[in-house]
Amino acid sequence: MSSDLRLRRLTIIGVGLIGGSLSRALRRAGVVDEVVGSSRNADHLQRAVDLGVIDRFDTDMSAAVAGADMVVVAVPLGAMENVFRAIAPVLSPGAVVTDAGSSKASVVAAVEAACGGIPHWFVPGHPIAGAERSGVEASFSDLYEGRRVILTPVANTDPKALSKVRAMWERTGAHVTEMGVAHHDEVLAATSHLPHILAYGLVDTLANLDDHDEIFAYAAGGFRDFTRIASSDPTMWRDICLSNRTALLKMLDFYTRDLAVMREMIDAGDGEALFELFARAKSERDGFVG
Amino acid sequence: MSSDLRLRRLTIIGVGLIGGSLSRALRRAGVVDEVVGSSRNADHLQRAVDLGVIDRFDTDMSAAVAGADMVVVAVPLGAMENVFRAIAPVLSPGAVVTDAGSSKASVVAAVEAACGGIPHWFVPGHPIAGAERSGVEASFSDLYEGRRVILTPVANTDPKALSKVRAMWERTGAHVTEMGVAHHDEVLAATSHLPHILAYGLVDTLANLDDHDEIFAYAAGGFRDFTRIASSDPTMWRDICLSNRTALLKMLDFYTRDLAVMREMIDAGDGEALFELFARAKSERDGFVG
Repeated sequence: MSSDLRLRRLTIIGVGLIGGSLSRALRRAGVVDEVVGSSRNADHLQRAVDLGVIDRFDTDMSAAVAGADMVVVAVPLGAMENVFRAIAPVLSPGAVVTDAGSSKASVVAAVEAACGGIPHWFVPGHPIAGAERSGVEASFSDLYEGRRVILTPVANTDPKALSKVRAMWERTGAHVTEMGVAHHDEVLAATSHLPHILAYGLVDTLANLDDHDEIFAYAAGGFRDFTRIASSDPTMWRDICLSNRTALLKMLDFYTRDLAVMREMIDAGDGEALFELFARAKSERDGFVG
Repeated sequence: MSSDLRLRRLTIIGVGLIGGSLSRALRRAGVVDEVVGSSRNADHLQRAVDLGVIDRFDTDMSAAVAGADMVVVAVPLGAMENVFRAIAPVLSPGAVVTDAGSSKASVVAAVEAACGGIPHWFVPGHPIAGAERSGVEASFSDLYEGRRVILTPVANTDPKALSKVRAMWERTGAHVTEMGVAHHDEVLAATSHLPHILAYGLVDTLANLDDHDEIFAYAAGGFRDFTRIASSDPTMWRDICLSNRTALLKMLDFYTRDLAVMREMIDAGDGEALFELFARAKSERDGFVG
């Protein structure tokens, strides 16, 4: 199926790391004739043209999606609703639209609010790829090679639209899987959103200590790895926390309960229980990292 | 001062990553005539000889420290008391002893229990260096290059012994600093012990979820970095939790309180407060990583 893919005009709304890397990968694969970029920032878009990431741009989203057979919306979660409100009425017949948002229930709700229901041409999607760097300058054609892309079709999603979006991501080298919206949000809350909260929280806890300058001076290798994700974009992570609130709170409560159990073990000096927990965690972690 | 250092016989008790790397570094610096290893495991010690890390070994600690002018105790925290009980009565006059334990109050207490007080020849120390790999096979002469070594002398510590231990570590390329025992334990609880607990806890929380195999399959880059320290040695980390209990519980309680505040922000949908916290944490983290 993926060998049949041909996109005459791909419009990418939000040409940053995610959108820019997608364009680069599809152009390298030779499956797209023209890539049009759109966003509110003409300087950014001109930079994307100069870098050879897109062919042309239009800051007017309605104009940018005209004639497009594929539209990828790669904007912050908080901007989704307005984008769909602007593009839905002017899409060409047969156009397929997908997004790259990190939480899916909130995007589905935004599309529903903008369109008065979930249109058959919309395929909710989420490429799981690096989020610490950002901007079109950071984009590269290999970003999705071996990475996972999760598609979360809903009842009304057209199977042909789903196939086309799947084929597109497969041509970037990604492993594409499908799951339900709510399940996606819990999986991502557990593996990505919760760890970010914990890392931001640790840096904040240490920053609040009286002698925090001295304390940071002794932070060595393990601490750097552990807190790397606390260097991620605060706006993006604020949006994710608000958008995936339900699943994130659920995972945070599981974690807080586990932490309380560990606190009890430490307080009680229960070395056996601590050893068992650490050994089990090490074995799980070594197992999945492989 | 460090240029004057000359060790005629260095005895290392516990020849793993820490002890082995120290020996390699000092031999490369040409400041030690003979290195004697000791531990309970003759196979390990023979391997250290074969690798050229030590000159010879004796599984009898009393015999191993005979004639040594410097003794480095690099054994697990739980084994400190027995080691000091064995070596204290048979040290040569003028011998200096230091250790490499990750928490200092517990080592000082162990030495006090073993010797009936803190001997003038003992300099509590802690080289802050990688703990995920272990064993003499993992040792290398550059381990301490640019790393920090903290010495925590107590009232009774002989200033000349302190100078000698400082000079020794300086010859490995480490930055040597001094601080009080309790302060060391809080700094390490914040920057190392707490992060380890949090990482072990996260892996454990995810492992306890019904669909944990699937969840781990979607764990990407940030998660791997974040949980890398959960691959550390469970025995060592059990010992650290028990040995540095007071400072660790204090930091864990600070963290749990911060997490509860973040939970409130997420639950209340307070985007402004979340953004401020994330931005402050990112700026602190970017600042100290430099």
